[in-house]
Amino acid sequence: MTPARQRYDQESLLAVAAQVFTERGYDGTSMEDLAKVTGITKSSIYHHVQSKEELLGIGLDRALDALFAVFDEPASMDGKAVERLRHVVRRTVEVLVAELPYVSLLLRVRGNTATEQRALDRRRTFDRAVRALFAEAIADGDLRAGLDPALTERLVFGMINSTVEWYRPRSEITVDDLVGAVLAIVDGLRR
Amino acid sequence: MTPARQRYDQESLLAVAAQVFTERGYDGTSMEDLAKVTGITKSSIYHHVQSKEELLGIGLDRALDALFAVFDEPASMDGKAVERLRHVVRRTVEVLVAELPYVSLLLRVRGNTATEQRALDRRRTFDRAVRALFAEAIADGDLRAGLDPALTERLVFGMINSTVEWYRPRSEITVDDLVGAVLAIVDGLRR
Repeated sequence: MTPARQRYDQESLLAVAAQVFTERGYDGTSMEDLAKVTGITKSSIYHHVQSKEELLGIGLDRALDALFAVFDEPASMDGKAVERLRHVVRRTVEVLVAELPYVSLLLRVRGNTATEQRALDRRRTFDRAVRALFAEAIADGDLRAGLDPALTERLVFGMINSTVEWYRPRSEITVDDLVGAVLAIVDGLRR
Repeated sequence: MTPARQRYDQESLLAVAAQVFTERGYDGTSMEDLAKVTGITKSSIYHHVQSKEELLGIGLDRALDALFAVFDEPASMDGKAVERLRHVVRRTVEVLVAELPYVSLLLRVRGNTATEQRALDRRRTFDRAVRALFAEAIADGDLRAGLDPALTERLVFGMINSTVEWYRPRSEITVDDLVGAVLAIVDGLRR
């Protein structure tokens, strides 16, 4: 088995596992089920990961790492809060589309295992960072004064997250259309 | 068994069934499971409904009937489209909170049975009616001209629906707070 072939297997196993976990629920999916769906034998799956929970963890980290990487981009760090917020909103939508199976999985997580708890903790850290941007943009007078930062953050990111339910890449709605429509709503919050 | 007692049973059976269907999935829940959770014998459940699918249908109709009733209110029928839209948004949020277990169930439905297909059809009819309000309000010049009515409807109602994930009645956030925060975002779409 060449390393290239091995990488391909790992990558496709992860993508399929994320999809199956999302559809049937993590608790309702066995390694046996994954072997059937992927056509990879159970022993080959165990060549890549030690457990079902490790597979879940890799999938969740993939979504979370991509989301957190947004905060390290220059446009998330420099400039006025309202512009940094716009950048984070734009890039979150783009990450959501690029990593759809993993973000969908992340949004289903309810915290039944240690791995899920860790993912929920990271999600909360992400939400807090975005909430702080809303608060700062309101304090700057760039977003309307009456807005509740926590509630507005929940609603705006609930809206963004809800797109995993219906948006599919390569549909007639492009990612830029989607980003544009989300930003049009966010821009409506400006003073 | 008095009629009052019977009504109570039917009502509580429905509420618990909706919750269990939402949590475990309709396909993953047996009448046996419902009997265990409710403490009602299977034969008593069959006294109320003929099948699991009938129970699902009653739960879904409860959410859908409440949502469609919003369109029959005078404020949804009279006045400018933008005001009718605002009213529908406000009342949808209120219905969602009042009928939380049934709306949550509705939002999980993927169309695996005839009953689910019928519910999805009714949801699509609801969405079309709201989309028409967005289009009319944009045509009236009351919402910004550049907005895509279909995409904006999906995003705004995706935002509203996402509140079932975290909002709980009698929390420190009142329904009026929630309605206010949603309307603040919708009002941002005005010209």
